Amino acid sequence: MLVPVDIKKVGRPPSNENQREVILNSAAELFARKGFDGASISDLAAAISQSKAAVYHYFPNKRQLCDAIIVQALATLVPRTQEQVSQASDAREQLRLFMLCHADQFETNRFGIITMLSGFDAMPESKTKQQANRLRDEHEALLRQIIRNGIDQQVFSPMDVSMAGRAVLSMLNWMARWYRPEGRLSARQIAAQYYEIICQGFVARS
Amino acid sequence: MLVPVDIKKVGRPPSNENQREVILNSAAELFARKGFDGASISDLAAAISQSKAAVYHYFPNKRQLCDAIIVQALATLVPRTQEQVSQASDAREQLRLFMLCHADQFETNRFGIITMLSGFDAMPESKTKQQANRLRDEHEALLRQIIRNGIDQQVFSPMDVSMAGRAVLSMLNWMARWYRPEGRLSARQIAAQYYEIICQGFVARS
Repeated sequence: MLVPVDIKKVGRPPSNENQREVILNSAAELFARKGFDGASISDLAAAISQSKAAVYHYFPNKRQLCDAIIVQALATLVPRTQEQVSQASDAREQLRLFMLCHADQFETNRFGIITMLSGFDAMPESKTKQQANRLRDEHEALLRQIIRNGIDQQVFSPMDVSMAGRAVLSMLNWMARWYRPEGRLSARQIAAQYYEIICQGFVARS
Repeated sequence: MLVPVDIKKVGRPPSNENQREVILNSAAELFARKGFDGASISDLAAAISQSKAAVYHYFPNKRQLCDAIIVQALATLVPRTQEQVSQASDAREQLRLFMLCHADQFETNRFGIITMLSGFDAMPESKTKQQANRLRDEHEALLRQIIRNGIDQQVFSPMDVSMAGRAVLSMLNWMARWYRPEGRLSARQIAAQYYEIICQGFVARS
Protein backbone atom coordinates (compact mmCIF):
# COMPACT_ATOMS: atom_id res chain seq x y z
CA MET A 1 0.00 0.00 0.00
CA LEU A 2 1.29 3.46 -0.91
CA VAL A 3 1.80 5.82 1.98
CA PRO A 4 0.78 9.37 1.08
CA VAL A 5 3.71 11.78 1.34
CA ASP A 6 3.17 15.26 2.69
CA ILE A 7 5.20 17.13 0.11
CA LYS A 8 5.46 20.22 2.24
CA LYS A 9 7.22 18.31 4.99
CA VAL A 10 9.88 16.75 2.78
CA GLY A 11 13.28 18.14 3.67
CA ARG A 12 12.08 19.73 6.87
CA PRO A 13 13.89 18.89 10.07
CA PRO A 14 12.00 16.71 12.54
CA SER A 15 9.73 18.78 14.76
CA ASN A 16 10.64 18.45 18.40
CA GLU A 17 10.50 20.52 21.52
CA ASN A 18 14.21 20.33 22.07
CA GLN A 19 14.97 21.94 18.71
CA ARG A 20 12.39 24.66 19.39
CA GLU A 21 14.09 25.37 22.74
CA VAL A 22 17.51 25.56 21.09
CA ILE A 23 16.16 28.17 18.68
CA LEU A 24 14.44 30.18 21.43
CA ASN A 25 17.54 30.21 23.62
CA SER A 26 19.94 31.21 20.88
CA ALA A 27 17.54 33.79 19.53
CA ALA A 28 17.09 35.31 23.00
CA GLU A 29 20.84 35.81 23.25
CA LEU A 30 20.95 37.39 19.78
CA PHE A 31 18.05 39.75 20.50
CA ALA A 32 19.51 40.65 23.89
CA ARG A 33 22.89 41.46 22.38
CA LYS A 34 21.87 43.07 19.08
CA GLY A 35 18.28 44.21 19.56
CA PHE A 36 15.36 43.22 17.36
CA ASP A 37 16.50 45.18 14.31
CA GLY A 38 20.13 44.17 14.68
CA ALA A 39 19.45 40.43 14.92
CA SER A 40 18.77 38.36 11.81
CA ILE A 41 17.51 34.86 11.13
CA SER A 42 20.76 34.31 9.18
CA ASP A 43 22.82 35.10 12.31
CA LEU A 44 20.61 32.79 14.31
CA ALA A 45 20.86 29.94 11.82
CA ALA A 46 24.65 30.33 11.81
CA ALA A 47 24.78 30.36 15.61
CA ILE A 48 22.94 27.05 15.89
CA SER A 49 24.53 25.52 12.74
CA GLN A 50 21.18 25.09 11.05
CA SER A 51 19.62 26.36 7.86
CA LYS A 52 17.29 29.36 7.89
CA ALA A 53 14.55 26.95 6.75
CA ALA A 54 15.05 24.96 9.96
CA VAL A 55 14.28 28.12 11.93
CA TYR A 56 11.29 29.07 9.77
CA HIS A 57 9.91 25.59 10.35
CA TYR A 58 9.22 26.61 13.95
CA PHE A 59 8.73 30.36 13.63
CA PRO A 60 7.32 31.92 10.46
CA ASN A 61 9.23 35.18 10.98
CA LYS A 62 11.55 37.10 13.28
CA ARG A 63 8.67 38.98 14.90
CA GLN A 64 6.89 35.82 16.01
CA LEU A 65 10.14 34.34 17.25
CA CYS A 66 10.85 37.42 19.37
CA ASP A 67 7.28 37.54 20.69
CA ALA A 68 7.51 33.86 21.68
CA ILE A 69 10.65 34.63 23.72
CA ILE A 70 8.91 37.53 25.45
CA VAL A 71 5.88 35.45 26.41
CA GLN A 72 8.04 32.54 27.51
CA ALA A 73 10.07 34.84 29.79
CA LEU A 74 6.89 36.17 31.40
CA ALA A 75 5.27 32.73 31.58
CA THR A 76 8.29 31.60 33.62
CA LEU A 77 8.69 34.70 35.79
CA VAL A 78 5.08 35.35 36.73
CA PRO A 79 3.86 31.99 38.15
CA ARG A 80 7.24 31.36 39.77
CA THR A 81 6.99 34.68 41.61
CA GLN A 82 3.40 33.98 42.63
CA GLU A 83 4.40 30.58 43.99
CA GLN A 84 7.34 32.06 45.95
CA VAL A 85 5.34 34.96 47.36
CA SER A 86 2.50 32.64 48.43
CA GLN A 87 4.87 31.00 50.91
CA ALA A 88 4.93 34.12 53.10
CA SER A 89 2.20 36.08 54.84
CA ASP A 90 4.18 39.03 56.19
CA ALA A 91 4.17 41.75 53.53
CA ARG A 92 7.86 42.53 54.06
CA GLU A 93 8.78 38.92 53.41
CA GLN A 94 6.41 38.80 50.43
CA LEU A 95 8.11 41.87 49.00
CA ARG A 96 11.55 40.39 49.59
CA LEU A 97 10.56 37.16 47.84
CA PHE A 98 9.01 39.08 44.94
CA MET A 99 12.18 41.09 44.45
CA LEU A 100 14.53 38.09 44.75
CA CYS A 101 12.44 36.03 42.34
CA HIS A 102 12.21 38.82 39.78
CA ALA A 103 15.95 39.47 39.92
CA ASP A 104 16.67 35.77 39.80
CA GLN A 105 15.62 35.78 36.15
CA PHE A 106 18.76 37.79 35.36
CA GLU A 107 20.68 34.70 36.43
CA THR A 108 18.49 31.84 35.22
CA ASN A 109 17.06 33.37 32.01
CA ARG A 110 19.23 36.41 31.44
CA PHE A 111 18.78 36.80 27.69
CA GLY A 112 15.08 35.95 27.81
CA ILE A 113 14.34 38.59 30.43
CA ILE A 114 16.46 41.21 28.65
CA THR A 115 14.67 40.47 25.35
CA MET A 116 11.35 40.75 27.19
CA LEU A 117 12.21 44.04 28.89
CA SER A 118 13.64 45.67 25.77
CA GLY A 119 11.11 44.22 23.33
CA PHE A 120 7.81 44.36 25.20
CA ASP A 121 6.70 47.81 24.04
CA ALA A 122 7.39 47.07 20.38
CA MET A 123 5.22 43.93 20.23
CA PRO A 124 2.51 44.43 17.61
CA GLU A 125 -1.11 43.62 18.48
CA SER A 126 -1.64 39.85 18.43
CA LYS A 127 -2.85 37.03 20.64
CA THR A 128 0.72 36.70 21.88
CA LYS A 129 0.75 40.38 22.81
CA GLN A 130 -2.53 39.95 24.70
CA GLN A 131 -1.04 37.02 26.57
CA ALA A 132 2.06 39.07 27.40
CA ASN A 133 -0.08 41.97 28.62
CA ARG A 134 -2.11 39.65 30.86
CA LEU A 135 1.03 38.18 32.42
CA ARG A 136 2.63 41.60 32.91
CA ASP A 137 -0.59 42.91 34.49
CA GLU A 138 -0.77 39.90 36.84
CA HIS A 139 2.82 40.46 37.92
CA GLU A 140 2.32 44.16 38.61
CA ALA A 141 -0.99 43.46 40.38
CA LEU A 142 0.75 40.98 42.69
CA LEU A 143 3.35 43.58 43.63
CA ARG A 144 0.70 46.22 44.33
CA GLN A 145 -1.24 43.68 46.41
CA ILE A 146 1.85 42.99 48.49
CA ILE A 147 2.30 46.71 49.12
CA ARG A 148 -1.39 47.07 50.03
CA ASN A 149 -1.06 44.09 52.38
CA GLY A 150 1.84 45.84 54.07
CA ILE A 151 -0.17 49.03 54.51
CA ASP A 152 -3.13 47.03 55.87
CA GLN A 153 -0.82 45.17 58.24
CA GLN A 154 0.62 48.57 59.26
CA VAL A 155 4.14 47.39 58.56
CA PHE A 156 4.34 49.77 55.57
CA SER A 157 3.49 53.47 55.67
CA PRO A 158 0.48 54.65 53.70
CA MET A 159 1.71 55.52 50.19
CA ASP A 160 0.77 55.71 46.51
CA VAL A 161 0.74 51.97 45.84
CA SER A 162 1.03 52.30 42.10
CA MET A 163 4.04 54.62 42.28
CA ALA A 164 5.69 52.47 44.95
CA GLY A 165 5.29 49.43 42.70
CA ARG A 166 6.85 51.30 39.81
CA ALA A 167 9.79 52.28 42.00
CA VAL A 168 10.45 48.62 42.88
CA LEU A 169 10.13 47.33 39.31
CA SER A 170 12.27 50.17 37.94
CA MET A 171 15.16 49.29 40.24
CA LEU A 172 14.93 45.64 39.24
CA ASN A 173 14.33 46.14 35.53
CA TRP A 174 17.16 48.62 35.08
CA MET A 175 19.46 45.72 36.02
CA ALA A 176 18.92 44.58 32.42
CA ARG A 177 21.21 47.46 31.52
CA TRP A 178 24.09 46.95 33.91
CA TYR A 179 23.96 43.58 35.67
CA ARG A 180 26.74 41.19 34.60
CA PRO A 181 26.83 37.57 35.87
CA GLU A 182 30.60 37.87 36.37
CA GLY A 183 30.18 40.86 38.69
CA ARG A 184 30.84 41.10 42.43
CA LEU A 185 27.25 40.41 43.50
CA SER A 186 24.67 37.93 42.24
CA ALA A 187 21.38 39.30 40.95
CA ARG A 188 19.66 37.98 44.10
CA GLN A 189 22.22 39.73 46.32
CA ILE A 190 21.60 42.98 44.48
CA ALA A 191 17.84 42.56 44.89
CA ALA A 192 18.33 41.85 48.59
CA GLN A 193 20.21 45.14 48.96
CA TYR A 194 17.56 47.00 46.97
CA TYR A 195 14.95 45.46 49.25
CA GLU A 196 16.71 46.86 52.33
CA ILE A 197 17.11 50.28 50.69
CA ILE A 198 13.46 50.56 49.60
CA CYS A 199 12.16 49.23 52.92
CA GLN A 200 14.30 51.32 55.23
CA GLY A 201 14.69 54.43 53.09
CA PHE A 202 17.66 56.78 53.08
CA VAL A 203 16.54 58.97 55.97
CA ALA A 204 17.94 57.89 59.32
CA ARG A 205 15.39 56.50 61.76
CA SER A 206 15.48 58.08 65.18
CA MET B 1 41.11 88.19 -9.65
CA LEU B 2 39.88 84.62 -9.74
CA VAL B 3 38.50 83.28 -6.50
CA PRO B 4 39.47 79.63 -5.99
CA VAL B 5 36.41 77.43 -5.72
CA ASP B 6 36.40 74.52 -3.27
CA ILE B 7 34.83 71.93 -5.54
CA LYS B 8 33.80 69.71 -2.63
CA LYS B 9 31.69 72.47 -1.14
CA VAL B 10 29.70 73.25 -4.27
CA GLY B 11 26.08 72.25 -3.83
CA ARG B 12 26.35 71.86 -0.06
CA PRO B 13 23.92 73.74 2.14
CA PRO B 14 25.30 76.64 4.14
CA SER B 15 26.78 75.53 7.44
CA ASN B 16 24.99 77.00 10.42
CA GLU B 17 24.29 76.03 13.99
CA ASN B 18 20.55 76.23 13.54
CA GLN B 19 20.57 73.60 10.79
CA ARG B 20 22.79 71.34 12.92
CA GLU B 21 20.32 71.69 15.80
CA VAL B 22 17.39 70.84 13.52
CA ILE B 23 19.18 67.65 12.47
CA LEU B 24 20.10 66.71 16.06
CA ASN B 25 16.56 67.25 17.33
CA SER B 26 14.85 65.32 14.55
CA ALA B 27 17.41 62.54 14.72
CA ALA B 28 16.94 62.23 18.50
CA GLU B 29 13.22 61.71 17.98
CA LEU B 30 13.88 59.09 15.27
CA PHE B 31 16.43 57.20 17.40
CA ALA B 32 14.16 57.38 20.45
CA ARG B 33 11.20 55.99 18.50
CA LYS B 34 12.93 53.46 16.23
CA GLY B 35 16.24 52.66 17.91
CA PHE B 36 19.65 53.02 16.29
CA ASP B 37 19.21 50.16 13.83
CA GLY B 38 15.63 51.07 12.98
CA ALA B 39 16.39 54.72 12.17
CA SER B 40 17.88 55.72 8.82
CA ILE B 41 19.41 58.86 7.38
CA SER B 42 16.75 58.62 4.63
CA ASP B 43 13.96 58.81 7.26
CA LEU B 44 15.72 61.73 8.89
CA ALA B 45 16.20 63.60 5.62
CA ALA B 46 12.51 63.08 4.82
CA ALA B 47 11.47 64.26 8.29
CA ILE B 48 13.30 67.56 7.92
CA SER B 49 12.59 67.94 4.18
CA GLN B 50 16.27 67.93 3.28
CA SER B 51 18.51 65.77 1.15
CA LYS B 52 20.64 63.03 2.69
CA ALA B 53 23.66 65.06 1.54
CA ALA B 54 22.46 67.94 3.72
CA VAL B 55 22.61 65.61 6.72
CA TYR B 56 26.00 64.16 5.76
CA HIS B 57 27.33 67.71 5.50
CA TYR B 58 27.08 67.91 9.31
CA PHE B 59 27.49 64.27 10.33
CA PRO B 60 29.57 61.82 8.27
CA ASN B 61 27.46 58.84 9.34
CA LYS B 62 24.56 57.67 11.52
CA ARG B 63 26.90 56.51 14.28
CA GLN B 64 28.50 59.95 14.71
CA LEU B 65 25.10 61.61 14.60
CA CYS B 66 23.78 59.34 17.35
CA ASP B 67 26.91 59.79 19.46
CA ALA B 68 26.61 63.57 19.14
CA ILE B 69 23.04 63.37 20.50
CA ILE B 70 24.19 61.26 23.45
CA VAL B 71 26.99 63.66 24.38
CA GLN B 72 24.75 66.66 23.92
CA ALA B 73 22.12 65.15 26.27
CA LEU B 74 24.77 64.52 28.94
CA ALA B 75 26.42 67.90 28.38
CA THR B 76 23.05 69.50 29.17
CA LEU B 77 22.01 67.24 32.04
CA VAL B 78 25.27 67.07 33.99
CA PRO B 79 26.23 70.76 34.50
CA ARG B 80 22.59 71.73 34.97
CA THR B 81 22.24 69.19 37.78
CA GLN B 82 25.52 70.32 39.35
CA GLU B 83 24.34 73.92 39.27
CA GLN B 84 20.97 73.04 40.83
CA VAL B 85 22.45 70.81 43.54
CA SER B 86 25.03 73.46 44.46
CA GLN B 87 22.21 75.71 45.63
CA ALA B 88 21.48 73.45 48.62
CA SER B 89 23.63 72.28 51.51
CA ASP B 90 21.26 69.83 53.22
CA ALA B 91 21.79 66.40 51.66
CA ARG B 92 18.05 65.70 51.48
CA GLU B 93 17.47 68.87 49.51
CA GLN B 94 20.52 68.13 47.33
CA LEU B 95 19.08 64.69 46.58
CA ARG B 96 15.66 66.13 45.80
CA LEU B 97 17.17 68.68 43.41
CA PHE B 98 19.31 66.00 41.76
CA MET B 99 16.26 63.80 41.17
CA LEU B 100 14.04 66.63 39.90
CA CYS B 101 16.73 67.92 37.57
CA HIS B 102 17.46 64.47 36.16
CA ALA B 103 13.77 63.74 35.60
CA ASP B 104 13.25 67.18 34.13
CA GLN B 105 15.15 66.06 31.04
CA PHE B 106 12.23 63.77 30.20
CA GLU B 107 10.23 66.97 29.73
CA THR B 108 12.77 69.35 28.24
CA ASN B 109 14.88 66.96 26.14
CA ARG B 110 12.78 63.80 26.06
CA PHE B 111 14.11 62.27 22.86
CA GLY B 112 17.70 63.25 23.59
CA ILE B 113 17.67 61.63 27.01
CA ILE B 114 15.95 58.48 25.70
CA THR B 115 18.51 58.21 22.88
CA MET B 116 21.27 58.67 25.46
CA LEU B 117 19.89 56.05 27.85
CA SER B 118 19.20 53.46 25.18
CA GLY B 119 22.29 54.14 23.09
CA PHE B 120 25.04 54.76 25.64
CA ASP B 121 26.24 51.17 25.94
CA ALA B 122 26.49 50.66 22.19
CA MET B 123 28.77 53.67 21.58
CA PRO B 124 32.01 52.49 19.99
CA GLU B 125 35.33 53.67 21.42
CA SER B 126 36.02 57.24 20.29
CA LYS B 127 36.77 60.66 21.72
CA THR B 128 33.02 61.23 21.87
CA LYS B 129 32.62 58.04 23.90
CA GLN B 130 35.36 59.18 26.30
CA GLN B 131 33.59 62.50 26.70
CA ALA B 132 30.28 60.70 27.36
CA ASN B 133 31.95 58.43 29.93
CA ARG B 134 33.46 61.42 31.73
CA LEU B 135 30.11 63.20 31.92
CA ARG B 136 28.30 60.03 33.09
CA ASP B 137 30.98 59.44 35.73
CA GLU B 138 30.71 63.04 36.95
CA HIS B 139 26.94 62.71 37.26
CA GLU B 140 27.11 59.44 39.20
CA ALA B 141 29.91 60.81 41.39
CA LEU B 142 27.77 63.82 42.29
CA LEU B 143 24.91 61.55 43.36
CA ARG B 144 27.21 59.38 45.49
CA GLN B 145 28.69 62.53 47.04
CA ILE B 146 25.21 63.73 47.98
CA ILE B 147 24.48 60.38 49.65
CA ARG B 148 27.82 60.49 51.50
CA ASN B 149 27.05 64.04 52.61
CA GLY B 150 23.76 62.80 54.01
CA ILE B 151 25.48 60.01 55.92
CA ASP B 152 28.10 62.44 57.24
CA GLN B 153 25.35 64.87 58.26
CA GLN B 154 23.58 61.93 59.94
CA VAL B 155 20.38 62.69 58.06
CA PHE B 156 20.81 59.47 56.02
CA SER B 157 21.45 56.02 57.49
CA PRO B 158 24.82 54.40 56.80
CA MET B 159 24.44 52.40 53.57
CA ASP B 160 26.24 51.09 50.49
CA VAL B 161 26.57 54.42 48.69
CA SER B 162 27.18 52.89 45.31
CA MET B 163 24.12 50.62 45.48
CA ALA B 164 21.97 53.45 46.84
CA GLY B 165 23.03 55.64 43.91
CA ARG B 166 22.14 52.87 41.48
CA ALA B 167 18.70 52.54 43.07
CA VAL B 168 18.00 56.24 42.56
CA LEU B 169 19.24 56.33 38.97
CA SER B 170 17.38 53.14 38.09
CA MET B 171 14.06 54.57 39.22
CA LEU B 172 14.66 57.73 37.19
CA ASN B 173 16.14 56.10 34.11
CA TRP B 174 13.39 53.50 33.78
CA MET B 175 11.06 56.46 33.17
CA ALA B 176 12.49 56.40 29.65
CA ARG B 177 10.36 53.30 29.18
CA TRP B 178 7.02 54.44 30.50
CA TYR B 179 6.86 58.19 31.07
CA ARG B 180 4.52 60.02 28.68
CA PRO B 181 4.28 63.83 28.66
CA GLU B 182 0.48 63.56 28.28
CA GLY B 183 0.21 61.47 31.48
CA ARG B 184 -1.34 62.44 34.81
CA LEU B 185 1.92 63.54 36.44
CA SER B 186 4.81 65.59 35.11
CA ALA B 187 8.27 64.03 35.18
CA ARG B 188 9.21 66.33 38.05
CA GLN B 189 6.14 65.29 40.03
CA ILE B 190 7.05 61.64 39.53
CA ALA B 191 10.61 62.33 40.67
CA ALA B 192 9.26 64.17 43.72
CA GLN B 193 7.22 61.08 44.65
CA TYR B 194 10.20 58.81 44.07
CA TYR B 195 12.23 61.10 46.31
CA GLU B 196 9.71 60.67 49.13
CA ILE B 197 9.60 56.90 48.64
CA ILE B 198 13.38 56.44 48.61
CA CYS B 199 13.90 58.83 51.52
CA GLN B 200 11.17 57.49 53.81
CA GLY B 201 11.20 53.84 52.74
CA PHE B 202 8.23 51.50 52.79
CA VAL B 203 8.53 50.37 56.40
CA ALA B 204 6.39 52.41 58.79
CA ARG B 205 8.34 54.63 61.18
CA SER B 206 7.38 54.25 64.79
